Amino acid sequence: MIDEYWWHRPDLCYKKNKLHFSGHDANMLASQFNCPAFFYSGERVVSNLLRIKDSLVKCLPNIQHKIYYAMKANRFSPLLTFLKTQKLCGIDACSPNEVELALSCGFGPHEISFTACSLSKRDFSQLSNYEGLIMNCDSLHSIRSWGKLKPGSKIGIRINPEMGTGRTNNDMLQYAGNKITKFGIYKEQFKEALQLAKTYDLIIDRIHFHTGCGYLNSELEQWQKVLKKSLWFIQKCPDLCAINIGGGLGVPHTQNDQRLNLDLWAETIAQVFGRLNVQIEVEPGDFLVKDAGLLLVEKTFLEIKKNKTFVGVNAGFNIAPEPAYYSMPFEPISLMNKKETIKVSVVGNINEALDIWYEDITLPDIADQKFLAIINSGAYSSSMSSNHCMRGAFKEVLLI
Amino acid sequence: MIDEYWWHRPDLCYKKNKLHFSGHDANMLASQFNCPAFFYSGERVVSNLLRIKDSLVKCLPNIQHKIYYAMKANRFSPLLTFLKTQKLCGIDACSPNEVELALSCGFGPHEISFTACSLSKRDFSQLSNYEGLIMNCDSLHSIRSWGKLKPGSKIGIRINPEMGTGRTNNDMLQYAGNKITKFGIYKEQFKEALQLAKTYDLIIDRIHFHTGCGYLNSELEQWQKVLKKSLWFIQKCPDLCAINIGGGLGVPHTQNDQRLNLDLWAETIAQVFGRLNVQIEVEPGDFLVKDAGLLLVEKTFLEIKKNKTFVGVNAGFNIAPEPAYYSMPFEPISLMNKKETIKVSVVGNINEALDIWYEDITLPDIADQKFLAIINSGAYSSSMSSNHCMRGAFKEVLLI
Repeated sequence: MIDEYWWHRPDLCYKKNKLHFSGHDANMLASQFNCPAFFYSGERVVSNLLRIKDSLVKCLPNIQHKIYYAMKANRFSPLLTFLKTQKLCGIDACSPNEVELALSCGFGPHEISFTACSLSKRDFSQLSNYEGLIMNCDSLHSIRSWGKLKPGSKIGIRINPEMGTGRTNNDMLQYAGNKITKFGIYKEQFKEALQLAKTYDLIIDRIHFHTGCGYLNSELEQWQKVLKKSLWFIQKCPDLCAINIGGGLGVPHTQNDQRLNLDLWAETIAQVFGRLNVQIEVEPGDFLVKDAGLLLVEKTFLEIKKNKTFVGVNAGFNIAPEPAYYSMPFEPISLMNKKETIKVSVVGNINEALDIWYEDITLPDIADQKFLAIINSGAYSSSMSSNHCMRGAFKEVLLI
Repeated sequence: MIDEYWWHRPDLCYKKNKLHFSGHDANMLASQFNCPAFFYSGERVVSNLLRIKDSLVKCLPNIQHKIYYAMKANRFSPLLTFLKTQKLCGIDACSPNEVELALSCGFGPHEISFTACSLSKRDFSQLSNYEGLIMNCDSLHSIRSWGKLKPGSKIGIRINPEMGTGRTNNDMLQYAGNKITKFGIYKEQFKEALQLAKTYDLIIDRIHFHTGCGYLNSELEQWQKVLKKSLWFIQKCPDLCAINIGGGLGVPHTQNDQRLNLDLWAETIAQVFGRLNVQIEVEPGDFLVKDAGLLLVEKTFLEIKKNKTFVGVNAGFNIAPEPAYYSMPFEPISLMNKKETIKVSVVGNINEALDIWYEDITLPDIADQKFLAIINSGAYSSSMSSNHCMRGAFKEVLLI
């Protein structure tokens, strides 16, 4: 029997050898809904939110803070409305349709921080109808377009500090760094940005940056350098009320990943921004919802091919693209803990070489199991899903 | 002025410096539909089909052949019905829903070749209702499940020849090779497969393999080795009527890619299978529809960031994931040819680092252009699209 599972926590663990999630027997959940089905734990999302808040209060006691949930991670409407009722966070939106959805789920425009790139005329026009929306401009084009529609208003500017922090060795998750990206305004154009804002009487009351995704403890040192890089921009904005440090806080995907120490994280912020009299804003997505999600799937086959044992499930990478595309594995787990173990590769039902959930994992013997669970599937799964091969159907369930 | 464009062909070229596609002025097309919009040329699809057919007839004059279009590449219903009316191909489907859609667009079950992995009980049950469906079993599990439902019927077996051919140096597109994959039945299990078929009185009248995607001329030598590897399996099937060699035929993505020589391709097949008295079946997806598609998008901004010029468009990688995920670039082209050129990176409207259409491309100056076109977007674009960031809206138009 496997003695210890790194992902074990009170709301996700075996009780009498049966997997329980958020107060429910996982097997019961799987039987009640047609799998594949995503289950989201409201309690876990709130606890993730509170842990961020607690660390910010502890390390930055004299500074206001605000959390905006990055809804692109998971826009399941019941989840959004649940978050609204908890009064712990606003919304980070990145398209007019996201704003519209957040509003339809109960949030007000003043609770929505908007940051996006490559906005069209139509986008700007739609956005200008949401009175109170917190607008962050990520380009000269954006300042100009918004300035014409909303002269005299307050804006944030998304900057590019030319340094990033993402999950280790994953270039796909770097938004700023040596490579010049489409994101934010660089030092070289910042003077022009300030002038442009002045032209339209825009007040820059906020600096925004988001430089990478999935950072953990090992990236905190690098992340502090990013924060320091932002000071060059911050010092040039006399009307500043807030610094939005973006999202990117990661969660462990494997047992080798070290969990992010939030006190250390908040202390890192305090060291750089602690003496500035501005609100600190954070926009976590992954961190709030990823480990609050459990995907339950049906086993389709268990078979040796050549000399390797494959377990098939009735769901493919198209409904949860991270493992296939970003090399961020979602670990499959058994619904029943057992003495006997089996080493398998878990694969999906899509006709593509990259449709692999996990290679070579040791699980409790699952020969007689009907279902499997996949952890960490609460973020960038359903929201990025496609109907590739017409295998796009799934259920979503909020557990509260 | 750029003298020559590698992608120029009579139905995709500048006429009086204006881009024309399939008999239409691209600017007119873009103005008539709300971009982003995919345009598919029926004529080009048919010409791609006929070129495959011509080469097969030329190099294998005494052998029957059959083409099944891999609908997972593009399942736009008008396109499927158009193909049905042309009577040049059947359909390769990989899920029960795909079969259902193909039927709803006019195809009969006997025109549909079905090959899929990790099928569930429900899948098998649905499939068994389509009398005449051409079923290829890719696992012992599949033979067993189908045998129980359809004893005495004819089946194909998908084999894994342990060797693959995909686009050069792209592991994501390799379905067979040194790495043991979920696809097909290996030598080690083939005897058991034959016995299992016998148990259910199944007649194996077809061997199927698909070992990679996007192969061009440079891969043909390797591809012949794959064909030869299949002979080991073929010789063990006395009732064989057909060999299905899968799809994978690629098209050039950049000017450095050498176009697949179809005569050489057909000759390669003839050398290995020419003396066997069996039908040759092919399942192209990319090859038929990729270069028959043109995506028209609206320019959102043109701006220097640091020292690099970015052009933004109102569509992101979520509606055409190949460039971002598979490193298979879709080249952006201008709707107007001009003397002056400009070097740009074309980016989309998704808040992700990998949302880049093309880096550092020299185009005719597009400062005064409203739209841009993106070639090769006819396959694995709309069919794999997602609503990530709620930026999933697009139009599709069949030009016939």
